[in-house]
Amino acid sequence: MTYCVGIRLNAGMVFVSDSRTNAGLDQIGTFRKMIVYERPGDRFIAMLSAGNLSVSQSIRELLQVESLPSEAGGEPLTIWNATSMFDVARLLGATVRRVQIDDGPALQKAGVEFNASMILGGQIRGEAMRMFLVYAAGNFIEATRETCYFQIGESKYGKPVLDRLIVPTTTLAAAAKGALVSMDSTMKANLSVGLPLDLLVYRDGSLANSELVCIDEQNPYFQMIRSTWGQRLREVFDGMDDPRWDDGETMHPLRTASTRYESLRKIANPTDRIV
Amino acid sequence: MTYCVGIRLNAGMVFVSDSRTNAGLDQIGTFRKMIVYERPGDRFIAMLSAGNLSVSQSIRELLQVESLPSEAGGEPLTIWNATSMFDVARLLGATVRRVQIDDGPALQKAGVEFNASMILGGQIRGEAMRMFLVYAAGNFIEATRETCYFQIGESKYGKPVLDRLIVPTTTLAAAAKGALVSMDSTMKANLSVGLPLDLLVYRDGSLANSELVCIDEQNPYFQMIRSTWGQRLREVFDGMDDPRWDDGETMHPLRTASTRYESLRKIANPTDRIV
Repeated sequence: MTYCVGIRLNAGMVFVSDSRTNAGLDQIGTFRKMIVYERPGDRFIAMLSAGNLSVSQSIRELLQVESLPSEAGGEPLTIWNATSMFDVARLLGATVRRVQIDDGPALQKAGVEFNASMILGGQIRGEAMRMFLVYAAGNFIEATRETCYFQIGESKYGKPVLDRLIVPTTTLAAAAKGALVSMDSTMKANLSVGLPLDLLVYRDGSLANSELVCIDEQNPYFQMIRSTWGQRLREVFDGMDDPRWDDGETMHPLRTASTRYESLRKIANPTDRIV
Repeated sequence: MTYCVGIRLNAGMVFVSDSRTNAGLDQIGTFRKMIVYERPGDRFIAMLSAGNLSVSQSIRELLQVESLPSEAGGEPLTIWNATSMFDVARLLGATVRRVQIDDGPALQKAGVEFNASMILGGQIRGEAMRMFLVYAAGNFIEATRETCYFQIGESKYGKPVLDRLIVPTTTLAAAAKGALVSMDSTMKANLSVGLPLDLLVYRDGSLANSELVCIDEQNPYFQMIRSTWGQRLREVFDGMDDPRWDDGETMHPLRTASTRYESLRKIANPTDRIV
């Protein structure tokens, strides 16, 4: 399994990926799932991938050389000369389809699903930052202000915290912190998501010079996140009013009138109740 | 879909279930997924169910009359004369298998999975409280001190918060609060989990007199939970140190030495980088 998050904020973009791959519980490995293609001052492109590792590694490699015929009849389109991230997403989609054509039938014969999903984010000079979620069929969707982040892989455990914390005006540092909290919640619940993490932070307009760190078990900041978040969560939880069952006064009564439990079924023994 | 939680604490047990059923997004309904069988002073049995609604309703109905041959050759075993919750779990398992025999083949022919899981908790006079998770094959596992809660249905979104908050020494009121927070996180993420909720709290040894409330959108306590939790979470989050990218001093540096990004591949254009 895998867990990756990409967030597009007003201030820039944040990417986090885990490193664990597994074929069953007894065969785990460590592979990076993040790659950056950049030409400083001209373009910055980051990709996170989930799914079958042979498929996503092939996609990653081939994307560097994939080309599509130019519509204007000029040079073929590549990630190195594309003038929009939309075109880069099209190229990635074409690459996915190419790997599907090459490997898909043999994988299917072997009973292995052609399984891949990618978060593609970046900026090309003259254009705003854009982020896409690319599916195994090569189709894709783009992040918007309403939905400013994408997840791939084991997304459910870490979603509530992102939903509550991340909006487009969140700072890059806060979004990086939030993505690490989300990753921590996921790693606690699913053994197939594991350290080290790759964390990449891109500032809008910088067209390179992104911050890229590898976070392992000894990382002091991540250790602080792991220990502090759980403890503070507990403090908040303890500080919230408990429900009250007695009839004392409370601002937030839990018991309210309901007819939901009135219809008890009659059963043979009059002391027995089914509610 | 469905989301239900059962928690066995030292002080008692807490059960929460949602009410939404759906066949596709355009066909949703409201059905209780919690049932209580009780004979005050003698036994208290609660069951939460997830899966195909026709299957779980049949199981619920038939469990009231299901019997197994007594091993001592006396009266057949029923939920009303069982002397242990383990026997009640066996009866439930037998009931599941009976419904599987009756309905399973026809469901399979129709391409519908025989899909059911149940949380069964209770206490019979003379025995400690016990809680079981019963699977579609009728087999079951029991909650322990190490793992004191079970979830069925859409369990992932609401798991991290339970993992961080619930231990056997948690009070009943705090566990009810925690289960509602977990439910709130799940409902925010999955439309197929919805109000009203049924919340049941059982005190160890009471053998009845459990607290049972129906929580709808107007419930003041649940409204407080929904608004307060998100807001406090954000306060905690804001209060935790952001990662720092500059080289200023910090107690928790994020950037640490790593050789992970040193091997850049050579590519045609010397200004291009692949990291």
